[in-house]
Amino acid sequence: MRDFSASGEWLSLNTATVREQWTLPEIIEACARHGIRAICPWRDQVANCGLPIAARLVREHALMLSGYCRGGLFTAHGSKGLKSALDDNYRAVDEACELGSPCLVLVVGGLPGALEGKLEHQDISAARTQVIEGIARLLEYSSACRMPLAIEPLHPMYAADRACINTLEQALDVCDQLNPDGADLGVAVDVYHLWWDPKLKSQIERAGRRRLLAFHICDWLAPTHDLLLDRGMMGDGVIEIRKIRGWMEEAGFSGFCEVEIFSSRNWWRRPGDEVLATCVERLRTSA
Amino acid sequence: MRDFSASGEWLSLNTATVREQWTLPEIIEACARHGIRAICPWRDQVANCGLPIAARLVREHALMLSGYCRGGLFTAHGSKGLKSALDDNYRAVDEACELGSPCLVLVVGGLPGALEGKLEHQDISAARTQVIEGIARLLEYSSACRMPLAIEPLHPMYAADRACINTLEQALDVCDQLNPDGADLGVAVDVYHLWWDPKLKSQIERAGRRRLLAFHICDWLAPTHDLLLDRGMMGDGVIEIRKIRGWMEEAGFSGFCEVEIFSSRNWWRRPGDEVLATCVERLRTSA
Repeated sequence: MRDFSASGEWLSLNTATVREQWTLPEIIEACARHGIRAICPWRDQVANCGLPIAARLVREHALMLSGYCRGGLFTAHGSKGLKSALDDNYRAVDEACELGSPCLVLVVGGLPGALEGKLEHQDISAARTQVIEGIARLLEYSSACRMPLAIEPLHPMYAADRACINTLEQALDVCDQLNPDGADLGVAVDVYHLWWDPKLKSQIERAGRRRLLAFHICDWLAPTHDLLLDRGMMGDGVIEIRKIRGWMEEAGFSGFCEVEIFSSRNWWRRPGDEVLATCVERLRTSA
Repeated sequence: MRDFSASGEWLSLNTATVREQWTLPEIIEACARHGIRAICPWRDQVANCGLPIAARLVREHALMLSGYCRGGLFTAHGSKGLKSALDDNYRAVDEACELGSPCLVLVVGGLPGALEGKLEHQDISAARTQVIEGIARLLEYSSACRMPLAIEPLHPMYAADRACINTLEQALDVCDQLNPDGADLGVAVDVYHLWWDPKLKSQIERAGRRRLLAFHICDWLAPTHDLLLDRGMMGDGVIEIRKIRGWMEEAGFSGFCEVEIFSSRNWWRRPGDEVLATCVERLRTSA
């Protein structure tokens, strides 16, 4: 297992972590100041500064990417909207290629209309079928572009409105179904979503190096005051991050630890430089 | 599958649903007014009126019980506190017997100290081992009393502070480990905790009649504003309650549908009679 105690070199910053403080160009400058070598940008931040500028800044700073957030939402437009969702996902693949990302992260979508408060139906099994169809269709395009897709299983508390793939086992079942022998489809393991799962260790082993495309870290606060925006900094919660990282590395993962913290109550209110310094420190002490 | 459209006869009221409005004697009177034939009382409510009075009122109104809430919390007092937790659980078994409950519901506990804000350690695997030890010890006593124990897997969002048994599969694994051939240990299936699980149908089938000791219903609201106290009335959320009830009945379950709603924002603020009337109506239309 890699020793992180002396350096934050394996830190990647998911740019949502400081999205309230800075634009993407500002975030990239800040990463350079803090010695952060990798980022995972969000599409809206890239769109705000323009893809060419984002790609140029990444190159100029010799930044690596740990992923690109995000594709998916295959159910967001309802059963008739799969084509529209796919068109948007094709663009996300193109952007990921342009930015040099190792994968496109997929948040697959929940019950159609739930996120917009206009629930179309309650059939989660049908939503899952629709998601698998969407991933299958996207995979034809992304494989041709040589851009791996990383299914991110989200915590079960997001099953209704954000993602109906909710365990690593379920995500790997989809990988095995759609891409049995390939390396075009894998998973993003986020400790926030998966730490509670009694099968997490065995499913990380099952996934193996080929399927483990990304590793996201933050912490689960006890108590948690908001279902979406109350994530904790590593070390402030209950997750055994280092133990899970050990399982990842035993299975062959050797990439970045991507810090992704949505925190409207705390970290989004602090100066961005304080947040980044804390991420670097906590990677060394608590991950 | 039973037809509930004409009658609320298979409704049981978990008494926490109106705990802010009424005492247990008042709740029992109200159930008589609304034709509700069964309840699942909470220990604190029983203690408040006294066990002999609670038992007498249950008998006088010919009420049935669908369960008794609750035992468990085997990790609440830390590793040294298992004896204290067990003593309290033995009393819960005695009370369940006195009240004529068909089972004692177990909320098994999370990481030691997490609920009290004094986390002792983060090792959820160790907490799970401690829980299994606790259930094994309690089972010796409860079996002798002929009081079945119903493990209630809680939603993964409660893994830190309330229960580290979080899927039906995990609960059934514990049943098979501790009570392979017996009927002294089973599960309480609560749709709120389990609706998202892609393996729910297959695990209900696996459980079968012998293990299915209780069935709890309410609804998952989208959005949900509080992790603990924002449960919805059946029909107001996204859960396919009737479909899940169908799976339960196919597997042999023929007991009460117990309504358990914690709702500080809505139902706890309404008149108790309105809540009970709504429960009866929604059992017919939405369960």
